[in-house]
Amino acid sequence: MVSFECDYIAGAHPEILRRLTETNMESLPGYGFDHYTESAKAKIRKACGMPDAEVEFLVGGTQTNSVVISTMLNDWEGVISAESGHVSVHESGAIEYTGNKVITLPAHDGKLRADDVRDYLENFYKDVTHDHMVFPGMVYVSHPTEPGTLYTKKELEALADVCHEYDLPLYLDGARLGYGLMSDASDMTLEDIARITDVFYIGGTKVGALCGEAVVFTKHNRPAHFMTSIKKRGALLAKGRLLGIQFDTLFTDDLYFKISRHAIDMALKVKEIIKEKGWKVYMDSPTNQQLIIMTDAEMEELGKSVVFDRWGVYDDTHTIVRLATSWSTSEEDIKVLADA
Amino acid sequence: MVSFECDYIAGAHPEILRRLTETNMESLPGYGFDHYTESAKAKIRKACGMPDAEVEFLVGGTQTNSVVISTMLNDWEGVISAESGHVSVHESGAIEYTGNKVITLPAHDGKLRADDVRDYLENFYKDVTHDHMVFPGMVYVSHPTEPGTLYTKKELEALADVCHEYDLPLYLDGARLGYGLMSDASDMTLEDIARITDVFYIGGTKVGALCGEAVVFTKHNRPAHFMTSIKKRGALLAKGRLLGIQFDTLFTDDLYFKISRHAIDMALKVKEIIKEKGWKVYMDSPTNQQLIIMTDAEMEELGKSVVFDRWGVYDDTHTIVRLATSWSTSEEDIKVLADA
Amino acid sequence: MVSFECDYIAGAHPEILRRLTETNMESLPGYGFDHYTESAKAKIRKACGMPDAEVEFLVGGTQTNSVVISTMLNDWEGVISAESGHVSVHESGAIEYTGNKVITLPAHDGKLRADDVRDYLENFYKDVTHDHMVFPGMVYVSHPTEPGTLYTKKELEALADVCHEYDLPLYLDGARLGYGLMSDASDMTLEDIARITDVFYIGGTKVGALCGEAVVFTKHNRPAHFMTSIKKRGALLAKGRLLGIQFDTLFTDDLYFKISRHAIDMALKVKEIIKEKGWKVYMDSPTNQQLIIMTDAEMEELGKSVVFDRWGVYDDTHTIVRLATSWSTSEEDIKVLADA
Amino acid sequence: MVSFECDYIAGAHPEILRRLTETNMESLPGYGFDHYTESAKAKIRKACGMPDAEVEFLVGGTQTNSVVISTMLNDWEGVISAESGHVSVHESGAIEYTGNKVITLPAHDGKLRADDVRDYLENFYKDVTHDHMVFPGMVYVSHPTEPGTLYTKKELEALADVCHEYDLPLYLDGARLGYGLMSDASDMTLEDIARITDVFYIGGTKVGALCGEAVVFTKHNRPAHFMTSIKKRGALLAKGRLLGIQFDTLFTDDLYFKISRHAIDMALKVKEIIKEKGWKVYMDSPTNQQLIIMTDAEMEELGKSVVFDRWGVYDDTHTIVRLATSWSTSEEDIKVLADA
Repeated sequence: MVSFECDYIAGAHPEILRRLTETNMESLPGYGFDHYTESAKAKIRKACGMPDAEVEFLVGGTQTNSVVISTMLNDWEGVISAESGHVSVHESGAIEYTGNKVITLPAHDGKLRADDVRDYLENFYKDVTHDHMVFPGMVYVSHPTEPGTLYTKKELEALADVCHEYDLPLYLDGARLGYGLMSDASDMTLEDIARITDVFYIGGTKVGALCGEAVVFTKHNRPAHFMTSIKKRGALLAKGRLLGIQFDTLFTDDLYFKISRHAIDMALKVKEIIKEKGWKVYMDSPTNQQLIIMTDAEMEELGKSVVFDRWGVYDDTHTIVRLATSWSTSEEDIKVLADA
Repeated sequence: MVSFECDYIAGAHPEILRRLTETNMESLPGYGFDHYTESAKAKIRKACGMPDAEVEFLVGGTQTNSVVISTMLNDWEGVISAESGHVSVHESGAIEYTGNKVITLPAHDGKLRADDVRDYLENFYKDVTHDHMVFPGMVYVSHPTEPGTLYTKKELEALADVCHEYDLPLYLDGARLGYGLMSDASDMTLEDIARITDVFYIGGTKVGALCGEAVVFTKHNRPAHFMTSIKKRGALLAKGRLLGIQFDTLFTDDLYFKISRHAIDMALKVKEIIKEKGWKVYMDSPTNQQLIIMTDAEMEELGKSVVFDRWGVYDDTHTIVRLATSWSTSEEDIKVLADA
Repeated sequence: MVSFECDYIAGAHPEILRRLTETNMESLPGYGFDHYTESAKAKIRKACGMPDAEVEFLVGGTQTNSVVISTMLNDWEGVISAESGHVSVHESGAIEYTGNKVITLPAHDGKLRADDVRDYLENFYKDVTHDHMVFPGMVYVSHPTEPGTLYTKKELEALADVCHEYDLPLYLDGARLGYGLMSDASDMTLEDIARITDVFYIGGTKVGALCGEAVVFTKHNRPAHFMTSIKKRGALLAKGRLLGIQFDTLFTDDLYFKISRHAIDMALKVKEIIKEKGWKVYMDSPTNQQLIIMTDAEMEELGKSVVFDRWGVYDDTHTIVRLATSWSTSEEDIKVLADA
Repeated sequence: MVSFECDYIAGAHPEILRRLTETNMESLPGYGFDHYTESAKAKIRKACGMPDAEVEFLVGGTQTNSVVISTMLNDWEGVISAESGHVSVHESGAIEYTGNKVITLPAHDGKLRADDVRDYLENFYKDVTHDHMVFPGMVYVSHPTEPGTLYTKKELEALADVCHEYDLPLYLDGARLGYGLMSDASDMTLEDIARITDVFYIGGTKVGALCGEAVVFTKHNRPAHFMTSIKKRGALLAKGRLLGIQFDTLFTDDLYFKISRHAIDMALKVKEIIKEKGWKVYMDSPTNQQLIIMTDAEMEELGKSVVFDRWGVYDDTHTIVRLATSWSTSEEDIKVLADA
């Protein structure tokens, strides 16, 4: 049995474990005040081409969305998201738990369109009752999106333009950012992301780390007393070194990008297999996850040697199946899939 | 100038002010422990044909929705509403403020369809990731709806059936309940509403009171320590008599129903005028508010003698205008409108 | 039976009911946009000697505390209160419900001492772990306090000095403000209160209104989009006229002050009776409520003709009894008490 | 330089890193559904002598307190804690952030007394205004306490008796539980803790893990849909294996207890050194942290070779210094301290 279930089936990239082990007995201050965390921040700032970006580490994706959104919104505001956005669908109401509304707009292949956002904003301010509504206070996108699609630079810049027109921060959820940046279809670099957005996070959990996400505030806009706000949300890690060392490793010698590219290489092979087998594609994705449509019988057959994810219901007789690659996918895994 | 802007342009029905004045100097206990409040509860229970219903008074509609929904939902749950529902659109995020998600389904003339709810529930439980989502924990409807339409008994019973199948309470927001019940198009009585729903409120603010809504728990389901939960939400009125005396008056000699019917009678005259003038109807409503489509020029002309509500944007050159009647609409008002 | 139970046993001052009745059928815009509300605001600004103060009306005291505190605190902050403060003890956790901590300091006759606040603040910032704590973000006092005592001008200014040193707003809960200002022991005017504090409210519910509190922001510090934040908290009254007309009446011809003074006059007579009867005073109050210590037998005897409040437990055999006067206390009430 | 700053200065016990490395490339399901997590739960249940206890893993201490308290309290309730309790002082208001009040009672050497709790509860229900207050809904203790003291079995049972009388769960925060259980002064076993309390957590972060706390519900009282509630609070770890493998290791061959005992052995040596040097003890602790009182000069001198924690301000010229041992303290560290 091999697993293409998701991109967090394995532990951490071995180099991370090696460095955690190597540094294990060093006495270090807690809460992210250690020098590995400092070093990781410096490397990320450099990779972003942004010497004065503010970098903070958190443990998981939903936690990061909850902390960033709830500390950046004003009392009267909510966050705009595609209706398929993770914050809208798959966080058990974590955003609402912090008192904030997720305002949903249509998703086009998982993406939010600048025109839809502009229309929404125009209509909102035209509406004479808008003081009785939730003000749009931030725009949330994920890149790659939930179904694995990518924004083009032009699309993201168009969103940023709308945001700036209305003085809203553009927040990019990069849970799988590496897989997006390393896709052949990507026309953006990490520097572009940092420049275009106001705040974003570089996902670690799904890209080689045991846990951890790196939030980057790119416009001198880190909320005041952010550490206290993190603690208040139960999200402050005592042994901050666990996050610092992992990201320091990931951003040494381009490891983050190399392992992300590996996942893309494996995904291209998966796409090849899908084509060969004639499986029906649900949504063509240039990143590390492929969505295909299968009958129960096909799923049963495939399930004999491969673990996969039931991503959603397609219709009464078909299911959307996800095959995800990751930094840990091996050529052997591919071979088993091909033979399945 | 006459006003058809909304159904809360006037103070209270004169009989309410008379009784407030009459009882004004009586020493009464606070927080709803006075005998007028008791009497009002008894009269409402009687009007509902439900001797053991539990009745509680709150000050306003958004407050009532917020208190009822947040005290009845479990931690892991949210509330289902039509996407046009008041709780979704026009409460500035009051439901989310209490930590709870509003799950929206399509609105059909402002109404939620039982089939849509059932499909949603079926798909929710089929979805293998549903533990990462917000569980549906209540169904919210308003009656009349936001655009003034009405559920038929059959439609409401169908919703109740789905709710009971999934063990969810059905909550009916009756901010304008009187205008719904007294409409010629209504095939439900207050007793029907009480029987079919699990909790609902009888709107006072828009139907003759200065303020106040009466929440009715119909299935021995009032949340424990409800008064403390009300206080916690800043919603407990010290002089509970203000609510008790108003509802005691409204439910004496059928005043609530009589003044509601008056509003419907006036609305029928407004409909007649709309027809005569050939104004384009946006949505035909059998209750106290009529939505029509007007150009800027038409609005300007009408605005010379009539105050109305800009309910929404229709298209680039047209606005949806609302003309609302209420218990306080007079024949003179109608005459001015006809002459406008 | 006469009642000295509390200062909200009667309805409203008759002049308020007269004006509510007189204006009842006027068509007015909702949500506080009517001209009576404007007029009330102007009169309050004038009474405060502060032409550019921002005035907003809310329905009740706990609601007001909850709205003001939760909109003025930053995410990382809490509010300092005397441990006997209303926000700490008697609001069912309304402040915590909005996510904010009440930081308690010792009460001295119900009052917070500037020195205690300064010590707390100094120690807080000295404490190297303070980023893991709740930052003090506001100072809350009530005037009169819970047991009916008063701050002197010097005491309140000393608190304001500490607050300004640490850039914290000083918030004064004036649920019974009139009774404080009109006390012979008061050395402050409404203008002093407005000048010294950063935000305060003028209590209506306990001083002649059916409901309503007037919040005064004295330093151009009203939170942005305050109306939306009020709505979000379920605290926006549709018929804002109910609050506007009441406060317009209370601030016409000094009615608020006159009826407050009446309560003090009645309280002086109650004090006289207490002295004559030799009842043991728990805390000497210069305002409208007198706290005395009684045995069960004494309470039973008194209870035959007088309704009073059991304010607290004194010891195993004694109870603290409160006798409150108000604008509605009559000479006849006093006579019955004297004869009790 | 050696560090006695706190008990989370090192990484993880080497055996934990060994097993994380060993299992690293195994494909495992996420969110705690892997077999290591299952195994860890089984071992903990066994160590608790409670085959049907429910065990759940979370990442950190404040997060655990926030999740447990907010999911177990009812809407109208708050949690009782010693005024020095971690939830009251050092969690940046995390409990209040979830809408819940921390009700504080006096701390006696960091401990809550059963008699104080009973008195509080009795007085609460005697108070006729208690519906306007926060109901006590849970009792929180930490063991060891903040200053490192321990409850005796008798003391903890007395607290449990009061709790059961009033039907409140007793919750024990065991962030440093191992160091408490292995202290010579302890008369309780893990089985005792499980039997006496209703819910408690076994701290990993401070006792050998990189992160992680194991919550044990001992009375079939795990909140419904707990995983969804965890996710809602941003506290669900995608790679649950990180917690499962760590606790599986800690509860294999009594590792948790052995390394805890090691810290106690080291602490006894620290106590010896304190005695020899004649340092003034602030509070005598039988666990892994020693609190001593030092002048600035003494701190400066000690600081030349030892890192320590400034635990608090003693007076104008003295500071309370904490010297903590842990599983990672070595004989060499002790020697440097002795020579300091």
